[in-house]
Amino acid sequence: MTANEKKHSDEAIARTMVADRRHFHERPEEGWCEFETTAAVVERLTKLGFEVLVGADAVDPENALGRDPKKVEAAMARARENGVSEDFLARSGGWTGAVGIWRTGRPGPVTAFRFDIDCLEIAETDAPEHEPNRLGYRSRYAGFSHACGHDGHTAVGLGVAAWVAEHADTLCGTVKLLFQPAEEGVRGAAAMAARGVVDDVDWFLGAHIGCSAHLGQVGVSHEGYLATTKFDLTYTGVPAAAGSPENGRSALMCGAATCMSLGSLPGHSGGITRVQIGKFVSGTARNIVAEHAAMLLEVRGETTEINDYMEENVERTVKGLAAAYGVEYDLRKVGHAVTYRGDEEAVALAKAAAAEVPGVESVVDMNAKIGSEDCTVLIRRVQSHGGKAAFFYFGCNHHGHHKKDFDIQDEQSLPIGWGVFTNFLKKTNGLGN
Amino acid sequence: MTANEKKHSDEAIARTMVADRRHFHERPEEGWCEFETTAAVVERLTKLGFEVLVGADAVDPENALGRDPKKVEAAMARARENGVSEDFLARSGGWTGAVGIWRTGRPGPVTAFRFDIDCLEIAETDAPEHEPNRLGYRSRYAGFSHACGHDGHTAVGLGVAAWVAEHADTLCGTVKLLFQPAEEGVRGAAAMAARGVVDDVDWFLGAHIGCSAHLGQVGVSHEGYLATTKFDLTYTGVPAAAGSPENGRSALMCGAATCMSLGSLPGHSGGITRVQIGKFVSGTARNIVAEHAAMLLEVRGETTEINDYMEENVERTVKGLAAAYGVEYDLRKVGHAVTYRGDEEAVALAKAAAAEVPGVESVVDMNAKIGSEDCTVLIRRVQSHGGKAAFFYFGCNHHGHHKKDFDIQDEQSLPIGWGVFTNFLKKTNGLGN
Amino acid sequence: MTANEKKHSDEAIARTMVADRRHFHERPEEGWCEFETTAAVVERLTKLGFEVLVGADAVDPENALGRDPKKVEAAMARARENGVSEDFLARSGGWTGAVGIWRTGRPGPVTAFRFDIDCLEIAETDAPEHEPNRLGYRSRYAGFSHACGHDGHTAVGLGVAAWVAEHADTLCGTVKLLFQPAEEGVRGAAAMAARGVVDDVDWFLGAHIGCSAHLGQVGVSHEGYLATTKFDLTYTGVPAAAGSPENGRSALMCGAATCMSLGSLPGHSGGITRVQIGKFVSGTARNIVAEHAAMLLEVRGETTEINDYMEENVERTVKGLAAAYGVEYDLRKVGHAVTYRGDEEAVALAKAAAAEVPGVESVVDMNAKIGSEDCTVLIRRVQSHGGKAAFFYFGCNHHGHHKKDFDIQDEQSLPIGWGVFTNFLKKTNGLGN
Amino acid sequence: MTANEKKHSDEAIARTMVADRRHFHERPEEGWCEFETTAAVVERLTKLGFEVLVGADAVDPENALGRDPKKVEAAMARARENGVSEDFLARSGGWTGAVGIWRTGRPGPVTAFRFDIDCLEIAETDAPEHEPNRLGYRSRYAGFSHACGHDGHTAVGLGVAAWVAEHADTLCGTVKLLFQPAEEGVRGAAAMAARGVVDDVDWFLGAHIGCSAHLGQVGVSHEGYLATTKFDLTYTGVPAAAGSPENGRSALMCGAATCMSLGSLPGHSGGITRVQIGKFVSGTARNIVAEHAAMLLEVRGETTEINDYMEENVERTVKGLAAAYGVEYDLRKVGHAVTYRGDEEAVALAKAAAAEVPGVESVVDMNAKIGSEDCTVLIRRVQSHGGKAAFFYFGCNHHGHHKKDFDIQDEQSLPIGWGVFTNFLKKTNGLGN
Repeated sequence: MTANEKKHSDEAIARTMVADRRHFHERPEEGWCEFETTAAVVERLTKLGFEVLVGADAVDPENALGRDPKKVEAAMARARENGVSEDFLARSGGWTGAVGIWRTGRPGPVTAFRFDIDCLEIAETDAPEHEPNRLGYRSRYAGFSHACGHDGHTAVGLGVAAWVAEHADTLCGTVKLLFQPAEEGVRGAAAMAARGVVDDVDWFLGAHIGCSAHLGQVGVSHEGYLATTKFDLTYTGVPAAAGSPENGRSALMCGAATCMSLGSLPGHSGGITRVQIGKFVSGTARNIVAEHAAMLLEVRGETTEINDYMEENVERTVKGLAAAYGVEYDLRKVGHAVTYRGDEEAVALAKAAAAEVPGVESVVDMNAKIGSEDCTVLIRRVQSHGGKAAFFYFGCNHHGHHKKDFDIQDEQSLPIGWGVFTNFLKKTNGLGN
Repeated sequence: MTANEKKHSDEAIARTMVADRRHFHERPEEGWCEFETTAAVVERLTKLGFEVLVGADAVDPENALGRDPKKVEAAMARARENGVSEDFLARSGGWTGAVGIWRTGRPGPVTAFRFDIDCLEIAETDAPEHEPNRLGYRSRYAGFSHACGHDGHTAVGLGVAAWVAEHADTLCGTVKLLFQPAEEGVRGAAAMAARGVVDDVDWFLGAHIGCSAHLGQVGVSHEGYLATTKFDLTYTGVPAAAGSPENGRSALMCGAATCMSLGSLPGHSGGITRVQIGKFVSGTARNIVAEHAAMLLEVRGETTEINDYMEENVERTVKGLAAAYGVEYDLRKVGHAVTYRGDEEAVALAKAAAAEVPGVESVVDMNAKIGSEDCTVLIRRVQSHGGKAAFFYFGCNHHGHHKKDFDIQDEQSLPIGWGVFTNFLKKTNGLGN
Repeated sequence: MTANEKKHSDEAIARTMVADRRHFHERPEEGWCEFETTAAVVERLTKLGFEVLVGADAVDPENALGRDPKKVEAAMARARENGVSEDFLARSGGWTGAVGIWRTGRPGPVTAFRFDIDCLEIAETDAPEHEPNRLGYRSRYAGFSHACGHDGHTAVGLGVAAWVAEHADTLCGTVKLLFQPAEEGVRGAAAMAARGVVDDVDWFLGAHIGCSAHLGQVGVSHEGYLATTKFDLTYTGVPAAAGSPENGRSALMCGAATCMSLGSLPGHSGGITRVQIGKFVSGTARNIVAEHAAMLLEVRGETTEINDYMEENVERTVKGLAAAYGVEYDLRKVGHAVTYRGDEEAVALAKAAAAEVPGVESVVDMNAKIGSEDCTVLIRRVQSHGGKAAFFYFGCNHHGHHKKDFDIQDEQSLPIGWGVFTNFLKKTNGLGN
Repeated sequence: MTANEKKHSDEAIARTMVADRRHFHERPEEGWCEFETTAAVVERLTKLGFEVLVGADAVDPENALGRDPKKVEAAMARARENGVSEDFLARSGGWTGAVGIWRTGRPGPVTAFRFDIDCLEIAETDAPEHEPNRLGYRSRYAGFSHACGHDGHTAVGLGVAAWVAEHADTLCGTVKLLFQPAEEGVRGAAAMAARGVVDDVDWFLGAHIGCSAHLGQVGVSHEGYLATTKFDLTYTGVPAAAGSPENGRSALMCGAATCMSLGSLPGHSGGITRVQIGKFVSGTARNIVAEHAAMLLEVRGETTEINDYMEENVERTVKGLAAAYGVEYDLRKVGHAVTYRGDEEAVALAKAAAAEVPGVESVVDMNAKIGSEDCTVLIRRVQSHGGKAAFFYFGCNHHGHHKKDFDIQDEQSLPIGWGVFTNFLKKTNGLGN
């Protein structure tokens, strides 16, 4: 490919990424419900010549966290209405996500990239100046939107796939592209990791658009993220008329006590711990002892070990309080992520890859200790098998993630992210620029 | 009227009461929303020749508790669709309930009876053996039903009105029939009392169907009911991402602390106290510090003074906790009832009246200390102006109040209740049987 | 005995009662520590000719509540120093309380009276106008005093014993005088009941001086007292430096949670419930996770069944919370009393007996629902074997029980109490006045 | 001074340090009570030729934290008994701590060292193998001991003073030796800082013996320590008999609620936060509503700002809860420390100083994020005036600080600490070794 051809090819891919991203933006699907998205990804990967794993070949159902079968069923029905084929739905077995594999047949490393594909349950803004409104590609699904930019991630993943297919004869080893479901709530990575799809990976790279990186900036992360576990907790007591309280067991009061006891769990000398009870719903009427209580909560830890400690504390506390209040409990782990520590070689490679991408003005260290990201679970798995991994941020200007007016304001950020991935692949393949 | 005429007349009234009760059963309206019911009552009273107070003449808006303007608006819209006249709706001013007054023009006492007219937010059972299902008069309004028998109360009130109109020339003084809104949640009586409609009353009688009285039994009450206050409580904090908890003020945690502190309020040497938090809803997502919390709660006391003590405790506690958690609070009194102590003369009159009613097998003392009833507020008002009051139960067999399969299984209970009221009126008028 | 002789005899007994009461007032001993008191009682009873049960013959060690072996040991040492004989101490086996039995040998009923003998851990006032200070018989034992009048009870018991001995030849059946230890904290009666000393009793009478009866008034009780259970609770966690909180298990935090959960136990439709945590001591230093927590608490119920319900709630709650906080717990029942319902015949006899006592101006019904009294445990035992029992109050003016300046201001109240007991005995023996 | 003379001199000082340390070990005085210790220090400094500040010239009474006048009075009385002169006690004005100043009269920097002098309320072990027991210099004051090695700090300070006096003619500028009271509980530094004694300081060095440094190791700290605030909290409610709970306001229940609310304060995105309630004492008797509650608590933060945030949270929470429970509160700040960040130049100087000390095997970085140390308050003050500061640890083997068997097992650690200080002084004075 001549430099000119290459330029034309890259520009074509960039245009496709923008179009893809808008396509996905219009069809936001929440975690474990990404049937339209997965179908589109699988169709494209197949057309490009990738071997594609889907359904239980891509994720391990035993290790899927926070998947609600009712929502999945409704999502499949909607996908069917929107033209997703019965064949695909049958093949999925009800499981979203896909892995595209390109085996060059030449000796060389296994390089894997991860792209998360799910949306958020956040209604998109109606503000006319919001670009998806202005340009007519706003979310079609009321109450849901790509308010964290995973539409862009998916588009970049397909852009990388196109590049791989075009440059296949220059590559060696194997390329794996992971289109991961259910990153929100840190639910999907565990299932993909458990399926073993990264166990042979030598080089692994994950990324997020935006965050604290502005357009033109690439942040490469050495370490960061809090480990976290998400729990759904329900208590079931015994209802009673308020006039005969002795006949009741109040799930509400047990829930309130749980808030106080979990909130006051002891800290840890090893670093930050956190408990957050974000939602609490209990009871039906003023004068009825509440039979049910449902709580959404999460713990975090500065290290995975600290997070494990918090998990154990939650389990012990909830069990004891249920006994104290004479109610039944159901404590379900619905999300999990660990901390991140990048491998120096992979981090260096990512930095070098980023430095060479057109439009990149600065490459900086970016180590966040605040949020959580389940790419860490895949990274930990890669590392446990001897692979090297890194994580980076490709900047874009935005109004804040998880907000109704989040937008990838600068779609030129997509080719930048794409460039870091493809350059990284060239480097693991020993190719110059 | 000959004895035979009387018998025919009474039988006709009894048949009408059954028809009326079924009519109201089909059109259950919750407290402050009883527009169809009130319109029907007003039309009948007017036709019978009563002077009728409605709207702000029957209830004092300033003292209305637990009225939700949005629900009222929706109820008016539905009433309009169902044929209630614009004239009536305009006259109501958005306020339900009515008082029928019959002034004989002859010197004599003022005798007042109270009938409550609202339904419950309880979906009626689908069981085919449930008589309203079998006979085809089940609730037309999904999610609502007359699960406490106020349809029967309303029908009895109209039966009494018919009797008064028929026997007007034998009566002296004045008769007042109060069709009170919003007894459920003890919300409506305060407004009717504050309007002054019972301030000139010499003899007052209230009643409830069923409860612990079986068919053929009339229970007359000397004392009873717990005083109670119902509160709606909301907290408004500051939302924040779980990763930056210092920016938030959790309404959820304040609510949980409130449950613990209100639950553990000290008791009272004077008798029973009770606190019940029946509903608690807070938060939107696992990883967002909850901005809002809403709680439904109530306190009770064995005496009105003890209930006042509990009220003050709730107010002080909520105010302090809101300050402790740095959140705003809104504590709204949405229901209120006091305790009941019948006047001996009125109780004796009610007993005597009951003993002479056909179908009454036994007249017993029935003094409950468990529930609450806002007829007590009207009774207290009557007594504060020197009038005498009593309260009774006219039995019917049933599956339990406030249950989806509650039913007045024996509609012959209606003429019994009616008989106690009309006999009581004869006695306050100095008439023999 | 002539009337004159009788008068002289009664006056002599009255004088002795005053002297005895002052003697006991100077030597206040707390529950289970009444060695000097018991020794004096036993000596007198023996001298008068009573058969006397002491130690394990009077109380059942298995059923002794709230007895602290260390305090008992110290009390025995002090008693020894104060001249109580080794013989007596050995005979006691470390157990206080005594039962005097007079068997007339003639057929007749068994009549039993109960007198409690322990003091309170309340330092007596230094106020010069306080009569024990003015007349020189104040407590010799710092920090302890007869602030509830049991010195008077003991003196009356000995007065009754003297009367029985004098009038033995006019009596029939058997007389039992129970000098019960450890009424404060409702600890001693269970042990005396379990020992079986009242199982053959036909007529039983207990009493308290003062309370709400003023001098000259005798209150006879038909029903009353709250059932109660007293608990000592300790938690044992794991200490840790505050800098390494993950190594600790805070007994303090578990105790705090316990206060909130016990405080907010649900009530009971059957009547009053109460929980009171009176003392909480935990931790050693600001920066050490507290290893130990000790709490003194009690529950009450308007009926014995309600109190049982509260007991179960406490047990379940404490066990569950200990599990929740990962600490060990020790929940010890240290006191217990039931409710009281007098037998009509016994109540009538007591009223009649009281009416004939010189100095009694009025005999009234006195039914308290507030406090607790473990005489109820003996009464329940008597009744369970078919005996009849009653309880009365003999008035005296005072500044309030359990206060440092409590005083039996009117020692003429003692002969009044004594008169009720002896008259009651005459009546159960079929004797006129 | 020849090398030989120097060696003899150093050895003499080392011997004196050991003797001094044992002297202070026998006379442990808790914070703000160090009258014997201060008197001995002042006498020595004076004899050596230092200008000495004591009393309100050394500490600012307005800024003294956690000082209990009763304990101070008792300590003064004991010091008087033990031979401390009336003159000294009068001069102290009741304030412990001293500053020795040596002005060379030659231009040069102001160099200041800080030595803390107080003991802990920990009873020293009776174990015969404990060296103070074996060699006969165990604590004479029951319940108190130098379980954190401040006896060694004081001795080193006097050793440094001796060296300064000996080498005064080789020095320039000014040397200040701060003998700080009340480091335990981080109480004394604020008062010394507020007095301005370090406002002119160019170079500042503080140290601690032991910690995680073993004998022969010197740890120099770049950053570390958690900021902390210590609070004493009392609640005053209204006592009442348990039978009339409505008359009471339970300080105990307010305290329990406080534990739960403070324990569950939200964290901070900026780093570690901590709340610890170490002691809670409330109530007098099982059946009395508790009038008083006393709590010892502390908060910490990874930065001073985070600690300030925690402070505000505590203040708001306590105030609100007191209002909620209707009790009075007294929240008193009794200790305060900030975080530490050493100045690079000072850290480098300390490292260089340490490297040249005989017996030092390794000089390492030692940055602890766990505990707190109020030397940070003095350091912050120095830095705010443009001075440079550092902190180091001089190792010794031990069984753990704040334990009854803590011991400076290796008294050769004292000359090592001393060596770092004196070498540092040489370096700030531009002297070679």
